[in-house]
Amino acid sequence: MPAEQKSITEECGIFGIWGHPKAAELTYYGLHAMQHRGQDGAGLVVNNGKRLLSHKGLGLVNDVFSFAEFSQLSGNVAIGHVRSATEGSQVYENVQPLLFQSQIQSMALANNGNLMNADRLQSELEHKGSILQTSSDTEVVAHLMKQRSMEVNETAIADALNQTSGAYGFLILTDDKLYAAVDPNGIRPLSIGRLGDAYVVASESCAFDQIGAVFERDVLPGELVTISDDGLQSSRFAMRGQRRMCAMEYVYLSRPDSDVNAVNVHASRKQMGKELASEAPAAADIVVGVPDSSISAAIGFAEESGLPYEMGIIKNRYVGRTFIQPSQELREQGVKMKLAPVRGMVEGKKVVMIDDSIVRGTTCKRIVQMLKHAGASEVHVRIASPTIQHPCFYGIDMSTYDELIAANYSLDQIRSMIGADSVSFLSVTGLEKSIIKDKTIHQGICAACMTGYYPVTTDSTNSGNTGSQVGLRGGSDHGKQI
Amino acid sequence: MPAEQKSITEECGIFGIWGHPKAAELTYYGLHAMQHRGQDGAGLVVNNGKRLLSHKGLGLVNDVFSFAEFSQLSGNVAIGHVRSATEGSQVYENVQPLLFQSQIQSMALANNGNLMNADRLQSELEHKGSILQTSSDTEVVAHLMKQRSMEVNETAIADALNQTSGAYGFLILTDDKLYAAVDPNGIRPLSIGRLGDAYVVASESCAFDQIGAVFERDVLPGELVTISDDGLQSSRFAMRGQRRMCAMEYVYLSRPDSDVNAVNVHASRKQMGKELASEAPAAADIVVGVPDSSISAAIGFAEESGLPYEMGIIKNRYVGRTFIQPSQELREQGVKMKLAPVRGMVEGKKVVMIDDSIVRGTTCKRIVQMLKHAGASEVHVRIASPTIQHPCFYGIDMSTYDELIAANYSLDQIRSMIGADSVSFLSVTGLEKSIIKDKTIHQGICAACMTGYYPVTTDSTNSGNTGSQVGLRGGSDHGKQI
Amino acid sequence: MPAEQKSITEECGIFGIWGHPKAAELTYYGLHAMQHRGQDGAGLVVNNGKRLLSHKGLGLVNDVFSFAEFSQLSGNVAIGHVRSATEGSQVYENVQPLLFQSQIQSMALANNGNLMNADRLQSELEHKGSILQTSSDTEVVAHLMKQRSMEVNETAIADALNQTSGAYGFLILTDDKLYAAVDPNGIRPLSIGRLGDAYVVASESCAFDQIGAVFERDVLPGELVTISDDGLQSSRFAMRGQRRMCAMEYVYLSRPDSDVNAVNVHASRKQMGKELASEAPAAADIVVGVPDSSISAAIGFAEESGLPYEMGIIKNRYVGRTFIQPSQELREQGVKMKLAPVRGMVEGKKVVMIDDSIVRGTTCKRIVQMLKHAGASEVHVRIASPTIQHPCFYGIDMSTYDELIAANYSLDQIRSMIGADSVSFLSVTGLEKSIIKDKTIHQGICAACMTGYYPVTTDSTNSGNTGSQVGLRGGSDHGKQI
Amino acid sequence: MPAEQKSITEECGIFGIWGHPKAAELTYYGLHAMQHRGQDGAGLVVNNGKRLLSHKGLGLVNDVFSFAEFSQLSGNVAIGHVRSATEGSQVYENVQPLLFQSQIQSMALANNGNLMNADRLQSELEHKGSILQTSSDTEVVAHLMKQRSMEVNETAIADALNQTSGAYGFLILTDDKLYAAVDPNGIRPLSIGRLGDAYVVASESCAFDQIGAVFERDVLPGELVTISDDGLQSSRFAMRGQRRMCAMEYVYLSRPDSDVNAVNVHASRKQMGKELASEAPAAADIVVGVPDSSISAAIGFAEESGLPYEMGIIKNRYVGRTFIQPSQELREQGVKMKLAPVRGMVEGKKVVMIDDSIVRGTTCKRIVQMLKHAGASEVHVRIASPTIQHPCFYGIDMSTYDELIAANYSLDQIRSMIGADSVSFLSVTGLEKSIIKDKTIHQGICAACMTGYYPVTTDSTNSGNTGSQVGLRGGSDHGKQI
Repeated sequence: MPAEQKSITEECGIFGIWGHPKAAELTYYGLHAMQHRGQDGAGLVVNNGKRLLSHKGLGLVNDVFSFAEFSQLSGNVAIGHVRSATEGSQVYENVQPLLFQSQIQSMALANNGNLMNADRLQSELEHKGSILQTSSDTEVVAHLMKQRSMEVNETAIADALNQTSGAYGFLILTDDKLYAAVDPNGIRPLSIGRLGDAYVVASESCAFDQIGAVFERDVLPGELVTISDDGLQSSRFAMRGQRRMCAMEYVYLSRPDSDVNAVNVHASRKQMGKELASEAPAAADIVVGVPDSSISAAIGFAEESGLPYEMGIIKNRYVGRTFIQPSQELREQGVKMKLAPVRGMVEGKKVVMIDDSIVRGTTCKRIVQMLKHAGASEVHVRIASPTIQHPCFYGIDMSTYDELIAANYSLDQIRSMIGADSVSFLSVTGLEKSIIKDKTIHQGICAACMTGYYPVTTDSTNSGNTGSQVGLRGGSDHGKQI
Repeated sequence: MPAEQKSITEECGIFGIWGHPKAAELTYYGLHAMQHRGQDGAGLVVNNGKRLLSHKGLGLVNDVFSFAEFSQLSGNVAIGHVRSATEGSQVYENVQPLLFQSQIQSMALANNGNLMNADRLQSELEHKGSILQTSSDTEVVAHLMKQRSMEVNETAIADALNQTSGAYGFLILTDDKLYAAVDPNGIRPLSIGRLGDAYVVASESCAFDQIGAVFERDVLPGELVTISDDGLQSSRFAMRGQRRMCAMEYVYLSRPDSDVNAVNVHASRKQMGKELASEAPAAADIVVGVPDSSISAAIGFAEESGLPYEMGIIKNRYVGRTFIQPSQELREQGVKMKLAPVRGMVEGKKVVMIDDSIVRGTTCKRIVQMLKHAGASEVHVRIASPTIQHPCFYGIDMSTYDELIAANYSLDQIRSMIGADSVSFLSVTGLEKSIIKDKTIHQGICAACMTGYYPVTTDSTNSGNTGSQVGLRGGSDHGKQI
Repeated sequence: MPAEQKSITEECGIFGIWGHPKAAELTYYGLHAMQHRGQDGAGLVVNNGKRLLSHKGLGLVNDVFSFAEFSQLSGNVAIGHVRSATEGSQVYENVQPLLFQSQIQSMALANNGNLMNADRLQSELEHKGSILQTSSDTEVVAHLMKQRSMEVNETAIADALNQTSGAYGFLILTDDKLYAAVDPNGIRPLSIGRLGDAYVVASESCAFDQIGAVFERDVLPGELVTISDDGLQSSRFAMRGQRRMCAMEYVYLSRPDSDVNAVNVHASRKQMGKELASEAPAAADIVVGVPDSSISAAIGFAEESGLPYEMGIIKNRYVGRTFIQPSQELREQGVKMKLAPVRGMVEGKKVVMIDDSIVRGTTCKRIVQMLKHAGASEVHVRIASPTIQHPCFYGIDMSTYDELIAANYSLDQIRSMIGADSVSFLSVTGLEKSIIKDKTIHQGICAACMTGYYPVTTDSTNSGNTGSQVGLRGGSDHGKQI
Repeated sequence: MPAEQKSITEECGIFGIWGHPKAAELTYYGLHAMQHRGQDGAGLVVNNGKRLLSHKGLGLVNDVFSFAEFSQLSGNVAIGHVRSATEGSQVYENVQPLLFQSQIQSMALANNGNLMNADRLQSELEHKGSILQTSSDTEVVAHLMKQRSMEVNETAIADALNQTSGAYGFLILTDDKLYAAVDPNGIRPLSIGRLGDAYVVASESCAFDQIGAVFERDVLPGELVTISDDGLQSSRFAMRGQRRMCAMEYVYLSRPDSDVNAVNVHASRKQMGKELASEAPAAADIVVGVPDSSISAAIGFAEESGLPYEMGIIKNRYVGRTFIQPSQELREQGVKMKLAPVRGMVEGKKVVMIDDSIVRGTTCKRIVQMLKHAGASEVHVRIASPTIQHPCFYGIDMSTYDELIAANYSLDQIRSMIGADSVSFLSVTGLEKSIIKDKTIHQGICAACMTGYYPVTTDSTNSGNTGSQVGLRGGSDHGKQI
């Protein structure tokens, strides 16, 4: 589980389907494909032709749906959500989709992202007498819509979203329509596919492959898509800014088989490995990747450098949530958790160890120790992404500033702290080259956590021109590179 | 889980520890590292200084031990077992270690392997008035020992084992000793390690790495090791035959980070891929491995052939036992199970698809289809092991003869059946070259399922000279190659 | 479980405590004592000094709290709720207390009862832009309060309750106060007790005994009690009407050890049995009660009639929710569920069978058959309450009008349908005599389901003068008797 | 659960059925009716026409069978068992029926009772090379039979049982026969019933009523019943001794609706209450019974004494295994467990409190306190059975000698210790008069725990003449009374 290895957690994956008789079941499979985007809760809301029904719960998709009776969730339209909770928010009430039953018009909302001004908006709503039941940004948007209009429609949605600033992909289901929207800078991903005549919407294209659907296009920045029995209509709720997809989607978050903004994630990672090999070669015997997320980059590094790729670290496939953690005493004696070195491969070797990113450095340190303990004569750490030095306000839960090793220490200090013989990071330019293939698709990437250049700020009016504004910590050299 | 992908299931992994205050807990971690050897049951017996205590159950190691209170399983000595059950034998009673409480001397047994003459031995015992409670070979050995002697000791164990014929690794725990034995041909693996002053015994060396123990040596064919407060003593219960380790341990069963008879499994697999690339090259664009067990061979094939290795197939890490299986209708519509193609990698490409072995061919066929459906222009299947044409009598549960595709169809028929553009298997010679590095260690391998040459037969007297005898179906060309 | 035997289900029990360091844990025990009032959901909200925390779930109190960590629910103030759901409303969202977190002022509500005009109020709220998340009356009251005032206080509560009409006991918890209120006619019960310096509030006094608290007084009709660090203050939100406690609380719903409006439930039931023996004696050998709720009345009948009381029917104490129900085929062969006849007692005897009430008559019929099959020569059914002929709008979920046997058939038809040799019901006068001991406490009872005289109607303005108005189906003779 | 209230636990209930197509399912219902005889484990073995299949587990019948698929347990013949475990014996292996699969002849055994010489027999068997896997007496009998004969038949069974001494009811199922046997003194109960053409055997007749079967007769002391396709045959394996049914079956263990040796249990308890009222009247206002087992005696006492019977103590029906126990601190503050006083009934009253028996006196003391705390002015304890002063060797697990309050203290000391105003026990004569109605059926009762007169001793040769021998502590006055 990514959450154990890194201190980065994606907060969500969303899925929607319109026009298939097995809508709820396909939503289940779609969510399952995006399980890596959130392991703390899952849910779906189906329109059974008469009303909206909800099935949700805490835990993994399989936990939540293992006793689901899909026969009781029949209907042609559904939306679903997988959720990664922050400490203290792991309660049932926060699991999405949020369903609001009403005598007038019921609706369900699911969101992947973060609204930076949610607290202020919530406060304003409560002073007007509204009652909010969750700590979810998503509920704020529901209230904003209802304040504007009895009926949820394009106008109400546009009005509500324009009061927010942040990064998001939204799905809104009413009795007769399914809406999908992406933030004006296109920071969070959302794609449209087809499954026969049915429409499918998902955070990642791997959900399409899982159910046999075919990718059609991405939802554009600032676009509001309306799907109904009349087909798909597109409108804009905001002027389109420069499209700046979150770089961490490529580096770590998305599944390697997904295409994000027309770029395959595995291919971009492999390219990051190649760029890294060019930028920071190492005199070593073998290349080893930290499973699973760094394998693509490691293969790329090996290919570019000409060094053999070896399986020097292995991941136990049976480590799940119920794994009994070894005590500190046993860990010090060498009892491993989920990663183990392959002694036969690394003993006596100079090893290039590829990892996708470093947040606090603690995991990296443990792996270096493990390799050395298994006999590696040298360990050269190569990180297939730039240093993470700034917090994310757009929905990725990383460590706080104080914990970010690259924000607080020099490269040489980091090398020393993790016990490596050398350490290098990919440059921001190298990262961009690995991701941006076509400037008509990507005007840039959001690498705010690496550069401190934030495409959206809380005082943003979300006019769509945010691309040109000064970031929170803007003006840095890194920022200019993007 | 291997059992879902292939029709090959290892039946067991065994673990023992002598002289560590956390014996039971370390046994748990050791078993966890060997979970891939058996997912249907797990158990341990600990000597708490006064008596032998058992904790076991059906299911995965984590399921069985998730509520274990190790504080109540304190003691310095323990043995454990993971088990893969055949249809109908998945009952609690068969979960090992088998514990026999007695007023005279209690004992516990755990076994990895198969006794070919167990039925006959059981019948003889029952005619003498013995009552057997399980359908396990292991219980037969317990009765054979007790028939011989009130007290279990080296003589009783040797006497009992010499009445059996088969392939096995045995652990026997009494009030004051821990015994370990391997069959006279060394078909099944068993290794000895050290954790400080403590002795550790395990089917696979990955269990040592998991707990921070250091590999010392393998238990030799026909050797009976006795561990007690007096240290480790070795004796022989049978003349040593030619050591013929099961080839499937390298091909598929063992974890890539294990060393089996001093040969690293990943390295042997990578070499199989290299040999395969030499024997059967393919004019293609990329090399793709079927995860997880074929990745090593695929990397080897790529390295040798100079073709790029790509992640063309991805495995969903969250597929577990509770996964709701899609209906036939949904599967036909394209809903995937645990493997998904990476369209962005394979579309329009000529693909070399590496798999470790073929049993019935059904999985292979499905993956070829999947790749073609995802746009692969050609799929060249390369299998990194020889054709499986014969049943195993030594503890590996493969499909019956009728289901073995290679036993019933020609190479060209197989190619046509799985829908590939070409198909090739590694030769037995290539397999041997990938495994046997040092003739003083390996006198050969057991490749009976590939060659029909069986190192042990049921009328074997287990004298240790079995290596020279004629196999069940012996005399084939394949047989001679070994 | 009462719900299986009868078609009567109480919807709720509520509990609150102010000023005890183990508030949450004591709430658990208090709810446990009132488990019979609701088996479908349970929950509590505790004020931990900083904020309101919730723990709730579907199922029995023990199910919901079996894994509760009370150490994480510390605090001096808590309220709780047990819930009986109607078909389709058994969802987590509806489990009370409802907790509304707010930046301004959080609050939690728990209610026992029913608001007759909830639908209209909800519609009005939604037309003003409010979003309701549950199908619970209780949420309506929360919104009514918030519409009136940013801050929940006596005025806001009184204002909200005065917009409703129905029967209820309400608990409202804010950051610094605990409010308790009962409907103007006192139809639903709510009592105040003391546990040392702490205040306790509960639907039934048995909850006080369970935790060692002492009953102090009942909350009066139309009274709003405010408990805070300043002690207990009383105010009125409505003029007090005639106090008309629900008769079914005595007949069936409450625990026999509870005192409801100063009358012990067991004693009132025993008196019902005595009155019944006077009104409708039977020439029989023994008196038998249907366990558990009819035992008190049966003992009273036996005492008054001079016939011996015998255990002629026994209830299996181990029948729980997981009991596998016998198939129709097996039931026809005589496989019993939870009640069994005591053949040795009833064989050859003329039996007076006492039941507390009849709704649809199906259970009664089955028990008569069972007794006859066990050899009873005659079965004289005596029901210790009047006929139920009208629906309840005040929070008791009984069968629909069409299913009420007494609403659709004559006494002789009922006798014939249930297969008894004779059948009699207690008169309304007899019921009143059994309950009303002191006219200063009880001005009457609500026996609307028996008489059709409804003390509150939907067009009631809740002015407190409702006692004199004409009931929904009023003017009947029965109605006049009350 | 009786086990919580008293320190008396019955160890078993057994059930068998021959000749019904739903044999396993009916066994489930039969066991369910006898759940009170053992709550620690349950199981059944069915003969599906080809082989014996087992389904068993730890816990309540419902727990064990909640996921049973009876469709996979089809067959016409089955036996079952419910078990009450002593500390340390609560392991799966000990759950009965014990099933012994064999190539020659499989068999299953279930037993209610205790063999006094089991340890010695086990030792002898082990010295002959037998391996026993459980700590169950029952397994000893299986080995004794197999030592005698390859085939289990009447001779082998008789031979085995005659080597044992103790009290028991045995069921033995082979491929083609069902055997039932009772110890030569008839201490443990076992009855035969009919369900259509099928034969049914059960420890208690309540199991017959549960499934619609009709009682036919009791298995006689020393009788071996053989049921097969040829019908029912009877033989004797031992000369019949005086039939001395365990008195505790009437006092406490059996369900009130059962007939034990032609005497209804409720009736005998009511009579004990009447005898007690004659022997030890009390000047009081009301009679109160401790639920559930003392209700019958309390009603008898009330009837005989002319005092009103009131519900002065109530038992919470929802207390199950998962009930969170209040801490000592909370208990001292008055938080109750499963019994609560009915204050409205006992306040200011002189109460006769009827309990069925006293073992250690701790529960009795707590209830007296509870009644006084609730306002009872006097509490007169009347125990509807004689003092328990001796251990039971026949299968009832009572407190050890040191804990038996009546073995160590005088009547007045007991009164003082439990805090009562007076205390009296029923005389042994009174007990006999309540149970023995027909000397041709009961030659006496086993009241060894009360009198010290033991009908069977370990040096008994089980010749059937044990009735006349001197008991372990024989010759006491109490002993003579029987």
